[in-house]
Amino acid sequence: MARWEPGARERLVVAAVDLFTEQGYDATTVAQIAERAGVTRSTFFRHFADKREVLVAGQETLSTLLAEGITESSADASPLDAVAAGLERASSAMGPVNRELGPRIRAAVAASAELQERDALKSVGLAAAMTAALVARGVPDPVAQLASELGVLAFKRGYAQWSEGEGDGADGLAHYALAALADLHSAASLLGPRPAGSIDEGR
Amino acid sequence: MARWEPGARERLVVAAVDLFTEQGYDATTVAQIAERAGVTRSTFFRHFADKREVLVAGQETLSTLLAEGITESSADASPLDAVAAGLERASSAMGPVNRELGPRIRAAVAASAELQERDALKSVGLAAAMTAALVARGVPDPVAQLASELGVLAFKRGYAQWSEGEGDGADGLAHYALAALADLHSAASLLGPRPAGSIDEGR
Repeated sequence: MARWEPGARERLVVAAVDLFTEQGYDATTVAQIAERAGVTRSTFFRHFADKREVLVAGQETLSTLLAEGITESSADASPLDAVAAGLERASSAMGPVNRELGPRIRAAVAASAELQERDALKSVGLAAAMTAALVARGVPDPVAQLASELGVLAFKRGYAQWSEGEGDGADGLAHYALAALADLHSAASLLGPRPAGSIDEGR
Repeated sequence: MARWEPGARERLVVAAVDLFTEQGYDATTVAQIAERAGVTRSTFFRHFADKREVLVAGQETLSTLLAEGITESSADASPLDAVAAGLERASSAMGPVNRELGPRIRAAVAASAELQERDALKSVGLAAAMTAALVARGVPDPVAQLASELGVLAFKRGYAQWSEGEGDGADGLAHYALAALADLHSAASLLGPRPAGSIDEGR
């Protein structure tokens, strides 16, 4: 087998998720993942630092795409429009394999505190990438941070709905992510009045 | 020294933060933390599972207080009012030691990927506790999740401002957390119109 055979990375992800599902995260070794994927251990380590990184493999790419979508949206786009553009850009990178793996990845994360931590940090990283891109557009800090949090929540909710197979699968991830963003934005109007104990905003 | 001497837990936290600051998180051992705090290693392990848990020591307590504040707020309180009540309840547990340790804890977290992960998971846990308490009050899911995220952001922003020593310190943490919550709520009105690509919310 060629050492740089195309698709090795994707096969490693599928093999890892299969093994995490079958026997649990803790019991799965890098050697087992590599064997299942039909590659050597050293090929594994060319793609991932350790078995945990397999499950957050797309973080760098996702961060880049989210930020690019925001940066390249039109100058007069609202903060939420810019975030929507980021979600569309990032969604375009997610195909059938991502859809199929989604529920199993969530199950693996739910079963492992170690993976939950890594997953939580991934969300923080995605939000930070979006916040930086929004701030670079001149969006003030609290608005940028809030818009980014909505974006992360929308992406996660949309991804869950998409990959749980709601609908017939004809709609891509972007459809679900943008719908979730709209839901969350609507929710903002249902938070209620300013809390009674709050103080002036002019600090 | 009495094995259950009062204050051992707090002394362990201070000792750990001091050592993380002086020599870094990775280089610090449980034995060093215990020695600095003047307790035995077994006393350390009576309070914490490992050195990492020292920095998220208050998570359980905070989650409980946030949820209690939400649960016990008046039946007609808006979701945001209920979150504000949770923030006030949680803030009441944070005293001068927490204020003084804040900047050093943030520095230690910023310097360690391992601590960043644990810290990110702590935020997820606090949000989940608030979401559950809001849902139990009948707040619909997306509103509950959004209100909880605002609550976590407000608590973190407020804690940072409070412990960075803005103002004269006469105001407690609750003052800063509620102000941050009001800021974030105001920011929601600056997100812009619904994103152009979004679809009907009636799914």
